[in-house]
Amino acid sequence: MSDLCLYHYYRSSCSWRVRWAMHLKEVPLQLRPVNLLKGEQKGDDYTRLNPSGFVPGLVIGQDSYGESVAILEWLEETYPAPPLLPVSPADRLKVRQLCHTISSGTQPLQNLAAQRMHADSREEQLNWARYWIERGFKTFEKLSAPVAGTFSFGSSLSIADLCMVPQVYNAKRFGVSMDPFPTINRVAEHCMRLDSCQKTKPENYT
Amino acid sequence: MSDLCLYHYYRSSCSWRVRWAMHLKEVPLQLRPVNLLKGEQKGDDYTRLNPSGFVPGLVIGQDSYGESVAILEWLEETYPAPPLLPVSPADRLKVRQLCHTISSGTQPLQNLAAQRMHADSREEQLNWARYWIERGFKTFEKLSAPVAGTFSFGSSLSIADLCMVPQVYNAKRFGVSMDPFPTINRVAEHCMRLDSCQKTKPENYT
Repeated sequence: MSDLCLYHYYRSSCSWRVRWAMHLKEVPLQLRPVNLLKGEQKGDDYTRLNPSGFVPGLVIGQDSYGESVAILEWLEETYPAPPLLPVSPADRLKVRQLCHTISSGTQPLQNLAAQRMHADSREEQLNWARYWIERGFKTFEKLSAPVAGTFSFGSSLSIADLCMVPQVYNAKRFGVSMDPFPTINRVAEHCMRLDSCQKTKPENYT
Repeated sequence: MSDLCLYHYYRSSCSWRVRWAMHLKEVPLQLRPVNLLKGEQKGDDYTRLNPSGFVPGLVIGQDSYGESVAILEWLEETYPAPPLLPVSPADRLKVRQLCHTISSGTQPLQNLAAQRMHADSREEQLNWARYWIERGFKTFEKLSAPVAGTFSFGSSLSIADLCMVPQVYNAKRFGVSMDPFPTINRVAEHCMRLDSCQKTKPENYT
């Protein structure tokens, strides 16, 4: 029995990032669902673990943590193989810039909490989500196009891909056209064929 | 003449994080203002450096980068002294969780671009900004209260403080009461007395 337990929601892009990284690094992990549509993320049971009320939340022994990219950095330091960041500081900066373009510049603005706070009508919520995803993808595409190989940065899977692919999944759900983002689209399709991506995608946890 | 040049806006909380870290690590730095109110962040001159159109943007020799927390991680790896992250992976995770609670969970939602996209009226924009700051600070306060010393995590200045203090500056501008956040308020007041904070605060660059 693992002493790591991830509280997640199947369709949460931030949860997928962590499921995917844990799978790649072969970290034994228990999974516990938190149903966002039923509001379970706001209940005392969950907010004791993660006061933000966002998923995922990771329990490590007696302690618990939130913020998926902070968890990815911890994983990288604690379970270095396979690496999800390049070696040189300049390359690491470029990968982290890509990662944060999604994790800070895109995801928080398009998520369910922000959609609901912005508007009541589903159409206005979706317009809002699409705006921020398209804005974030425009940046990611410009940054990634000159440096992408089979992955967003070169020929190694990185935390940039682990953030980007789940965001593409959301984008498609929300009706964003991927035509203006050929690099993102090509890399995301490549990633989706990886066993690690297939094993951790939302459909496995519905 | 330094080959590092930071494009910043005096009142941008993300710019302040980087100015502050560079000052602490005694990294020689040129500064170039980008006037957000005049829309200079959308101009070709700036978006060539940082396609996101957000400040700050950091030019390092022939390359350029955005995303302030990615830049903070690069600084930590490249100029390790004084450290702005603790040593143990678990402590680093807690500090990064605090940092990202602001950088990902709060700042992107309360910034000028999101305010303007949400509503036209100044009152609605401010209500929106206050909501997200108060939501983020509730989380930060709960996470920090049990672990804070003179700083947000223990007795050493960290990237958690470098993100939190500029966010408190915004909070006060937007009329958020700090009464519900005694730990944040106490630590922010302590930080504001530090020479490194005084030397890099917005008022020096108006």
